[in-house]
Parts: sequence; structure tokens; C-alpha cells
Amino acid sequence: MIKVLRLGHRLGRDARISTHCGLVARAFGASGIVYSGDRDKKMMDSVKKVTGEWGGKFSVKYSSFKSTIKNFKGTKVHLTVYGIPIQKKINEVRKKRDILVIVGGEKVSGEIYHMADYNIAVTGQPHSEIAALGVFLHEYFQGRELEKRFPGAKLKVVPLDKGKKIKRI
Amino acid sequence: MIKVLRLGHRLGRDARISTHCGLVARAFGASGIVYSGDRDKKMMDSVKKVTGEWGGKFSVKYSSFKSTIKNFKGTKVHLTVYGIPIQKKINEVRKKRDILVIVGGEKVSGEIYHMADYNIAVTGQPHSEIAALGVFLHEYFQGRELEKRFPGAKLKVVPLDKGKKIKRI
Repeated sequence: MIKVLRLGHRLGRDARISTHCGLVARAFGASGIVYSGDRDKKMMDSVKKVTGEWGGKFSVKYSSFKSTIKNFKGTKVHLTVYGIPIQKKINEVRKKRDILVIVGGEKVSGEIYHMADYNIAVTGQPHSEIAALGVFLHEYFQGRELEKRFPGAKLKVVPLDKGKKIKRI
Repeated sequence: MIKVLRLGHRLGRDARISTHCGLVARAFGASGIVYSGDRDKKMMDSVKKVTGEWGGKFSVKYSSFKSTIKNFKGTKVHLTVYGIPIQKKINEVRKKRDILVIVGGEKVSGEIYHMADYNIAVTGQPHSEIAALGVFLHEYFQGRELEKRFPGAKLKVVPLDKGKKIKRI
């Protein structure tokens, strides 16, 4: 069971980035996301709406980062450019069954580095918490997440070489 | 040589998403990004600034999507949820040396699906062009991009188990 914790959401400014974090968590096989920072019903509803239409079980919650990390029974993995390269740690992390993947916002409190069991870097270059999350989950599941099924979907893509096709179920 | 084309940038609304696309392209081994849509000097400067500080060669340009796709001598790969699953096509695509990776904005013109040599889906679920780009490049380079060096960097992360350390060179 993989949960994602998104740190320090800010109303307005972070709406799309935080939405993408939620959608990536869901699409790449996590079972839920917890948002901390500003409470943003509209942003969270946009993630829930996707689950309602595209299926699968995926929880979307709001909570404080401290209580989320403290109460999590499992391994806490913080994705940060300052951490140890993913290629050195992923085999070890993959053995853990219950993981909280913590993804940063603009400013990450220094405590997080110490509350986490692992601080892991997806490249040592500045880029995007969204891509870091996607690549981490892809590495963790070793590509099996690409075959994941989403039961109860109302919408489903029919893959095409050219063009777009969506099936309504 | 991998270039990225970001479609349909919109001033204001897409600034952070398009910045993340540029930074992910750079961090995961592409050699440049072309932005189309609204011309946005500030956004493009923020991507150039990262290259200036963190090293490597990475071009950031503005152009129309049509001329960029038409003039590209190589294989055009459009990342779209409507395409063929990446796991079915990546071995074939990996044999190509020069690739233009096209990533969508909010609305992608129907022409793109026909101008591209491949339409490829990174999961058949709605999520994020940023994560799709990161996972595509990670799959293309098979993780070698994680070891990429960025010559001429002024800043470099010193990986740590706990905490943050940046070396100024």
C-alpha cells in the first residue's frame, strides 16, 4: 500500500501542480493522497472527480503533515533533490510493503528530512515533484503499474495509433 | 539527440507547468526544449537560469509547433493518453537516435496525432504531461540519465541521508 503526502499546498499558486501530484499518484498505482498546507476543496474535488469517472479506489484527504507522518505505520520516503540517488536505494525500498511517499512544495521544513526513513533524489538536478513522484512509483512498481486496472470506470481510453477514442461504460 | 516540444503554452495559467516541463526535459537528458503557444520570456528565462547555474548544455527556444515538427529531422513522438501504451513501443522507439518528444497542453490540435510518427501513452489514465515526459525519458535512457553529468555547473547537490547540502563551484 502506497500513500502520497503532498507538503505545503498553497491556494491559487499551487492548484495545478498539486492536482497533477494527485493524478500521478493515482495513475501510477498509489492508493491515496493526503494534502497538507492550505485546505483547498476545489483542487481536491478535481482529483476526486477523476477517480469517480476513471475508476479504481483512490482516497483524497486533507491533514497536517506532522500527524500524517507520525501516524503512518510503514516506511516514510521523502523525495528531495538533496537525498541519496534513487538508483542506490530503490532495491532496498522496494522490499517495503507500506510506504508513505512525501513530495515537497516550494519550501520544505527541515524536520521532514529527519522524520523520513529515506531521503531520496530522483536526479540531483532541480526539476519537478510531479516527475519525481511518477518516476519513483514507476521504479518502485517496475512498470507493473502501467498495466493497472481501474474497476468501476465510466470512461476508458481505447488506444489508437492516430486520433482519440474514449469509451463510455 | 532528444528535443522536447511543449505545445500551446498559455501566459499566466501554464507558467509553472511549462517551467516544470523544461526542467524535467533538462534533468532527464534532453538537449533542449521548444515552447509554442504564447511567447513567455519570463517563464523561458527561469528555465535558462537553471541551466546557467546547474550546468550542462540545454537550449530553450520559442517557435510555432507546425514549423518545429515539420523541420525536425528525426522521429516525432507525441505523448498522449490516447496513444499506444509505452510498454508496447519503447523498444522500437529506443532504436531511434534523434527524437522530438511532443508534450501537450490543455487542448491539443487534431493535426498533431497525424504529424507524429508515434502517439504514445504513459498509462491510459489522465495525469500530467510533466510525469509522462519524465517517465518517457527515463524509459528511453533506461536509467542512464540518472548518472548524467552537467559540465560547467556553479551549483551541485552533495547527496545526504538527512539534511541539505549544496556545493558552490
